[in-house]
Amino acid sequence: MRLVKLVAYGWSSRRSRPAIRDQVVAALAGARIEGWDGLLAAQRAYLDTFWDGADIELDGDAEVQQAVRFAMFHVLQAGARAQKRPIAAKGLTGAGYDGHVFWDTERYVLPVLTYLQPRAAAEALRWRHATLDLARERAATLGWAGAAFPWRTIRGHECSGYWPAGTAAVHLGADIADAVVRYLNATGDTAFERDAGVELLVETARLWVSFGHYDRHGAFHLGGVTGPDEYTAVADDNVYTNLMARRNLTAAADAAARQPDRAAALAVTGQEVAAWRAAAAAMSIPYDDELGVHPQVRGFTVMKEWDFAAAGPGDYPLMLHHPYLDLYRTQVVKQADLVLALHWCGDAFDPADKARDFAYYERRTVRDSSLSACTQAILAAELGHLELAHDYIGEAVLMDLHDLHRNTRDGVHIASLAGAWLSLVAGLGGMRDHDGALSFAPRLPCRIDRLAFSLLWRGHRLHVTVRPGEAVYTLRTGRGDAELTLSHHGERLVVTTAAAVRRPIPPITPLTGTPVQPPGRGPAHRSDLVR
Amino acid sequence: MRLVKLVAYGWSSRRSRPAIRDQVVAALAGARIEGWDGLLAAQRAYLDTFWDGADIELDGDAEVQQAVRFAMFHVLQAGARAQKRPIAAKGLTGAGYDGHVFWDTERYVLPVLTYLQPRAAAEALRWRHATLDLARERAATLGWAGAAFPWRTIRGHECSGYWPAGTAAVHLGADIADAVVRYLNATGDTAFERDAGVELLVETARLWVSFGHYDRHGAFHLGGVTGPDEYTAVADDNVYTNLMARRNLTAAADAAARQPDRAAALAVTGQEVAAWRAAAAAMSIPYDDELGVHPQVRGFTVMKEWDFAAAGPGDYPLMLHHPYLDLYRTQVVKQADLVLALHWCGDAFDPADKARDFAYYERRTVRDSSLSACTQAILAAELGHLELAHDYIGEAVLMDLHDLHRNTRDGVHIASLAGAWLSLVAGLGGMRDHDGALSFAPRLPCRIDRLAFSLLWRGHRLHVTVRPGEAVYTLRTGRGDAELTLSHHGERLVVTTAAAVRRPIPPITPLTGTPVQPPGRGPAHRSDLVR
Repeated sequence: MRLVKLVAYGWSSRRSRPAIRDQVVAALAGARIEGWDGLLAAQRAYLDTFWDGADIELDGDAEVQQAVRFAMFHVLQAGARAQKRPIAAKGLTGAGYDGHVFWDTERYVLPVLTYLQPRAAAEALRWRHATLDLARERAATLGWAGAAFPWRTIRGHECSGYWPAGTAAVHLGADIADAVVRYLNATGDTAFERDAGVELLVETARLWVSFGHYDRHGAFHLGGVTGPDEYTAVADDNVYTNLMARRNLTAAADAAARQPDRAAALAVTGQEVAAWRAAAAAMSIPYDDELGVHPQVRGFTVMKEWDFAAAGPGDYPLMLHHPYLDLYRTQVVKQADLVLALHWCGDAFDPADKARDFAYYERRTVRDSSLSACTQAILAAELGHLELAHDYIGEAVLMDLHDLHRNTRDGVHIASLAGAWLSLVAGLGGMRDHDGALSFAPRLPCRIDRLAFSLLWRGHRLHVTVRPGEAVYTLRTGRGDAELTLSHHGERLVVTTAAAVRRPIPPITPLTGTPVQPPGRGPAHRSDLVR
Repeated sequence: MRLVKLVAYGWSSRRSRPAIRDQVVAALAGARIEGWDGLLAAQRAYLDTFWDGADIELDGDAEVQQAVRFAMFHVLQAGARAQKRPIAAKGLTGAGYDGHVFWDTERYVLPVLTYLQPRAAAEALRWRHATLDLARERAATLGWAGAAFPWRTIRGHECSGYWPAGTAAVHLGADIADAVVRYLNATGDTAFERDAGVELLVETARLWVSFGHYDRHGAFHLGGVTGPDEYTAVADDNVYTNLMARRNLTAAADAAARQPDRAAALAVTGQEVAAWRAAAAAMSIPYDDELGVHPQVRGFTVMKEWDFAAAGPGDYPLMLHHPYLDLYRTQVVKQADLVLALHWCGDAFDPADKARDFAYYERRTVRDSSLSACTQAILAAELGHLELAHDYIGEAVLMDLHDLHRNTRDGVHIASLAGAWLSLVAGLGGMRDHDGALSFAPRLPCRIDRLAFSLLWRGHRLHVTVRPGEAVYTLRTGRGDAELTLSHHGERLVVTTAAAVRRPIPPITPLTGTPVQPPGRGPAHRSDLVR
């Protein structure tokens, strides 16, 4: 005997119960007509389309190969049907974080969906846009202009009760603006720009001008903020926040110029745009001249060092065993912060600074957050530490499958799973999309024989295959001939649908020795595990 | 008919109920024998003795004259019978602060009791000493050496739940140490030094060495602390804290040298003493070279300015109307902090710096705390702004009688009432006791014709009378002839019991114009009220 049971699920916080019930009944009726085979075929077709553009192929590390597919499946699952709902930190896989969404959705998840499932990225940003009234109200309550988005929320209200690690993390607004900009650059979706993009950029930019201030020498500062690293709080001039705010201000000014009627509807004046550009130009980026290193926040590099020698394995994660009073005032780093800036704002750094910065923060970063390994993989790869990159990739992609943070029972780490894609594509593939220019700088660690990935760029599908000596770029399109300009290790290439472009991979000599992590906090070596 | 009702009160957290009952019964039996007249006579004798040494006479401002007596009575009431119990913020007059004791007892109350009722000061410090085990335990929990005294407590346990405005205010340890040092200097009480003083100094000093750190240039820093001003929190190198810690370290080293057997019993080594002296010598004191002003904490003078123009009377106290997120990151000051250092660590500042510092902080201090006016009075007087000093004295002494903070229903402000004495004696009298040297620099505002006060110094009673043109120093003693060396406006004087010493008061030209307060936040002018 064969039993087929059809189950439909419907939910809404807005529609009436009868309406939801009708939706479920209709879904069941449709399913009965389709039958099991019909449903299966529809699902298969949907997933085949997804995997055609999203799959990453990796020869030489079967475990990572398998894990990255697990990661991509979960990112799709969390994002594809969000439909103007937030993509929560745990997706729909667990009760961790009470179903709340945080900044990491815009920082880690949307840049991935932008290239794999752009409609899902747009829907998530349209949800943020739908909460703008609440964010404007919150900013007004706090005495600021523009919009102050909530650190954690489901419906748009601030649900964080501890402001030093919540409201003070004002970088969230710039993360949202950045996700808007990258989405617009990758898709050219002008309808989204008009409906939601301009307003998100303008309202987030407005916050910075009212929040920050000019010092007596005319430098613009953002004081009393918490950056991405949760082991430092309420400090001045967080480099990540300042660089992201600078981009936010410039992007709002550019968007207002592109969409003057939308800007006028938001009461943007020429004077206001000038104030945005002035604050961006004057943004203060602290730098330690003696060490040649960027302090994560002003004064960071002269703060007390954490006593790593006194800490054993049982001390981690540190926040469960040491008071924040000591974590905040020492140079211990929970997660990529300055290093996050080296990735997403990498165009603002000089290569020698990047190398010194990365080595400096590697020595002090304990990765008590799942939001770190992927970014460390990306910088390790960029700076030529390819085996270290491979190790971090392993940690990023196996976060949940190996339950590395011992809390996967609360749900998978959606942002970290999206970070798995980033660690391979932005890491080994060297993909960057600063200011709308697509660039690659692929390089493989010794155990990886081949990496292949795809991404959607303005409706075309770019396929990249990397082998130890060369990279091949192929363009596919459903709409006739097309061409795409990109950069390969600094060389400008035009890739057309007519033919693949092959380019050799230049050698790299790292500017520093292999960076060292705090005792016992290095990633597991893939070389001990692969083959 | 005349009815006499005798009431006795007994309480203990340690003794048994029968023991307390016996004590009460004995007190009643004694009272029955003494009778009403006997009790009255004993009370009168006690108070006569107190007022003989504690009274302040002031001609020219009857309201302040009356109020300072009210203040001294309450300080006596709160302190005289504490008997190894803490002197709470509200004494026994109300339920405010839940009966807890804070740092202000050692900072404001004990320096006054030291000169008026030294036994009460010793008892309060012996209570702190009795809680040392808990303070050592707390330090160990936090990963520090020595003792970490509680921000608010009744029995010695930390009862503050918000560490950025509690445990992070590590200056408390130095305030306790300072009260010990001033008490020892004023009394020469070597029994107290042996029993309690050395241990308090040693254990508070130990904390600094483990808490702070040396930077790469060898300067010693105390990072991530909260100073006295509650509108700034968790910042680096609070000048008040660093100067007080420096004195604490030196005092511990000196005490260990004076009492080598006590030091040995506490396992103090020569190496440890050297570490204290080294940290004291290397203590970093931030300074803004451009402005010629000490930042309250590192970087303070480049932080955002508070928008005083946008604040109306309904905005005060600011902490009830504005988020701490904005208070902490702006240059708005709740209460004397750097100015508190200018008073208690005044020997560490140059006069021109003092004048600029005072003017700078006057513009930014809103006095949303009762712990500020008295200190501002003292600095205003020292710097020659005598009418401003008079205004602040008025505010300090009338805090409770005029219910200036609208919360006297919760109990009187014992520390502020002690501050009333300080505002007159250290303010108009210019009394200082840095490093055990007693000095005066008296000067009167135009409406005060005479100020007279007394203080106990090593068992002798020094009486000081100040008139517009001169000061008279008289020494009384119950133990034969005596002499006391002091300084009058920088001139060394020896005052003996044989004859009073008269000295003229030199004129002063303030180095700055009269300091200005934020709009609407200046003190009420006594000139509008007196006569």
